[in-house]
Amino acid sequence: MVRPFASVLLVFTLVFAVWFNALKADEWRGTGDLGVVVERATGSLLIVDQSDRAALGRIEGLGDLSHASVVFSPDQRFAYVFGRDGALTKVDILTQTVVGRVQQAGNSIGGAISDDGELVAVANYEPGGVRVFDAKTLAPVSRFDTDGKAIGLVDAPGRRFIFSLWDAGETWIADLSGPEPAITRVEDIGSNPYDALITGDGRTYIAGLFGEDGLTALDLWDAAPAPQRVLPGYGRGEDPLPVYKMPHLEGWALAGDRFVLPAVGRHELLWVDARDLSELGRTQTHGQPVFAVARPDGRHVWVNFAHPLNDTVQVVDTATGAIVHSLTPGPAVLHMEFTPRGHEIWVSVRDADRIDIYDTTSFEKLGEIPANSPSGIFFTARAHRIGL
Amino acid sequence: MVRPFASVLLVFTLVFAVWFNALKADEWRGTGDLGVVVERATGSLLIVDQSDRAALGRIEGLGDLSHASVVFSPDQRFAYVFGRDGALTKVDILTQTVVGRVQQAGNSIGGAISDDGELVAVANYEPGGVRVFDAKTLAPVSRFDTDGKAIGLVDAPGRRFIFSLWDAGETWIADLSGPEPAITRVEDIGSNPYDALITGDGRTYIAGLFGEDGLTALDLWDAAPAPQRVLPGYGRGEDPLPVYKMPHLEGWALAGDRFVLPAVGRHELLWVDARDLSELGRTQTHGQPVFAVARPDGRHVWVNFAHPLNDTVQVVDTATGAIVHSLTPGPAVLHMEFTPRGHEIWVSVRDADRIDIYDTTSFEKLGEIPANSPSGIFFTARAHRIGL
Repeated sequence: MVRPFASVLLVFTLVFAVWFNALKADEWRGTGDLGVVVERATGSLLIVDQSDRAALGRIEGLGDLSHASVVFSPDQRFAYVFGRDGALTKVDILTQTVVGRVQQAGNSIGGAISDDGELVAVANYEPGGVRVFDAKTLAPVSRFDTDGKAIGLVDAPGRRFIFSLWDAGETWIADLSGPEPAITRVEDIGSNPYDALITGDGRTYIAGLFGEDGLTALDLWDAAPAPQRVLPGYGRGEDPLPVYKMPHLEGWALAGDRFVLPAVGRHELLWVDARDLSELGRTQTHGQPVFAVARPDGRHVWVNFAHPLNDTVQVVDTATGAIVHSLTPGPAVLHMEFTPRGHEIWVSVRDADRIDIYDTTSFEKLGEIPANSPSGIFFTARAHRIGL
Repeated sequence: MVRPFASVLLVFTLVFAVWFNALKADEWRGTGDLGVVVERATGSLLIVDQSDRAALGRIEGLGDLSHASVVFSPDQRFAYVFGRDGALTKVDILTQTVVGRVQQAGNSIGGAISDDGELVAVANYEPGGVRVFDAKTLAPVSRFDTDGKAIGLVDAPGRRFIFSLWDAGETWIADLSGPEPAITRVEDIGSNPYDALITGDGRTYIAGLFGEDGLTALDLWDAAPAPQRVLPGYGRGEDPLPVYKMPHLEGWALAGDRFVLPAVGRHELLWVDARDLSELGRTQTHGQPVFAVARPDGRHVWVNFAHPLNDTVQVVDTATGAIVHSLTPGPAVLHMEFTPRGHEIWVSVRDADRIDIYDTTSFEKLGEIPANSPSGIFFTARAHRIGL
C-alpha cells in the first residue's frame, strides 16, 4: 500500500521540481530594456519591452493620467506614476501589479526620485507644495508647503530636490541628506515659472517663464546660486502667436555644448551656448515645438509640435541647426523616448492608438505597438540618469 | 483506496502551486542595481547587489581574469566577460550560470557591445585584430585581422566599433550597420597607442600614446576624422619617472567641459579643455594615477595610483583642481565604480580581499564585502552608456 503511493508522490515531486526550475529560469528576466507607456484616456499603463518591440501587459485603474509622468526605482523593477489627480502609484513592472497607492493631493504635476532611490517627491498644484514619500512603503517623510503651485520638480545629486513656485517666482533647493531637510530659497527667478529642466550632470537648472519672455538658469555648483536670465526678450518686438501648448523642458535638451530650447508661441528652436548661456542661433520649425529632445549622443534633436500641427516630427542636426529629416507618424504625436544609447526612438501617436518605432540613423520604421491613446513613454534606463 | 490517494495528491499540488507562486514573485528581481566583481586570482566573478551592498553569489571557472573587463546586454541580465586568455564568456547574472563561452584568441584586451546590443567585439593581442560575435549565440559574425595588437576598442553610435593598432599607429572605425562591414582607417595616430577612451556622447575618441609624449583625439562627427594631438610633449624636458603601471583611459574622464587625464609616469593629472583640447592646468597627486574617474555629475574626480603608492585614493574638485579629500582604503586599490547617479562608490582593495563602499558626499564608509583579490567592478548600468 505505502510503497506505490510513496513512489507516485516521489515521481510527482521530481517532475514538479524540474518543471518549476525550468519555468523559473524561463520567467526570470532582466529589467533594463523595459518601459511603460501612459494610456491617458483609460487610466492604464502599458508595460513594454524594447528588445522585442512589444507590449508585455497592461495595468489598469490608475486614475487620471493626463499629463502623467513616471520615475523608476534603482533596480528598475518599480515604476512610480504621478497622476494629474494627485495620486502617487507604485507599480511592479515584473508582476504587473499595483503595489502601493497614495492620494497625496488634489492636483499634481510630476515628481522625482532621489539619487539613492530612497525618496519619491511629488509637486502639487492644489494644495501647493512638494510632498516626499518613502520609496519602499510610500509612507510620508517630509513636506514643503507653499503658497500656490509648485512646478519644475527635479532630483539633484546629494539627495536634493529642486522645484519652483509659479506665483512667487522662486526656486527652492531642498537638501534631504541630513537628519532635517534644509531649504535654500532663491528669489527673483522671474514671472510665473511654468516648467524646468536640470542638466544630466545635475549642475544647471533652467526654468521656463510664462509671465515674461525668457528663461532663468541657476548654477547649482555655486554655494549661493544666483538667477541668470537666459534669452531675455527673445520674442520681443514681434507679434506673439497664440500659444497652443506650453512646451516641455527636459534634461535631454543639452546636446554637446549647447542647449536646444523650444520657443514659447513661436515656430522656433533656440540654441544656447551651455557655457555662457548666450544665444547661438535659431532654427525655424514646422510648428510650435512641444518637446525638443536630444538623442543620447547629442548629434540630433527630435522635435514634435503643438496642435494643429502635431502629426509631424522634425529631426535637427545640432552641429548645423539644419533640419535633416521630417516624418509624419500620424495624428497627435505626444511624446518621444530614445532607447538608452539612442539607436531607436519610440513615438506615441495618440489619435492613431499606436506607438511607432524608428531607427534613428536610417529613419526606417521598425515596428508599431497598439496602445490606447498613448501619451508619455518612459524607459527604465531613466532610473540611472540624474534629473529624469 | 483511490479517494484518499487523489485527495493527498490534490492537496499536495495546491500547496506546491501556492509555494511556487510565492517563490516566483519572491525570486523575481530587477537587474538595474546588480553588478559583477572580477576576482582575478581565482578566475571567478562575484555577483553583487548595490541596493543591499552585498554579494549574491559567485561564478567560477572563467579562466585567466587578470586585466579582465565586462560589458552588459541591454536587458542587464547577461554579462560578457573578456578574459586575458582570449576567452569570451557569457554569464547569466540572474541564474548565476555560464551560458556561453568561446576561446576566440590567445590573448585579448577588452571588448565592447554595439549600441543595439546585438554584437560583441573583442580586441586581441595574439593574433592581432578584432573579432565580432553574435551577442545572443556567440557565433562569429565578422573579423578584422591586423598586423600586431589591437587596443582601445570601444563602441560608438550607429553600430560602430573603434579601435587602434599598437604597431601601425592607426585607428580603425568599423561600421557594421550595413550588410557588409565598412572600415575607415585613420593614419598618423601617433607612436604606439596603448589605450583609448570615447566620450559618453560617442563623439570624441582619445588614444593615449606610449611611444611619444601625448595623446591623439579624433572628432567622430567629422566625415573624415583627422588626428589632433593633445598635450604634445607634456612631460618634455623633465626627467621621466619610471612607469610602474600604464594609466587607464575611460569614458568617465569627461567632467563637465573638461577632460581629466592621468599623466604617464608622473604624479600628475592633466586638465584639458573639451572644446579645443588645450591644457587648462595640472594637479599634483599622491602617486602615478591609474584611473581618474569622474563622478557621474562631474563635480569630483576619484583617482587611484600605481604601485607602490596604491593604498590611497584622492578626490579632486573639478571646478578648482584642488584635492578635497584623501582616503586610504588599504593595500592595492585596483578599481573604482560609481553607482549610476553617483551617490556611492565601490572600491576594490585587492590585497585586503575586500570591496569598500563609500558615500561620495560625506566620504563616510558605508560597508564592505569580502571578495577574492578583487579587481574590476562593473555595474549593469553600463549597458545604457555609450562607450563603456
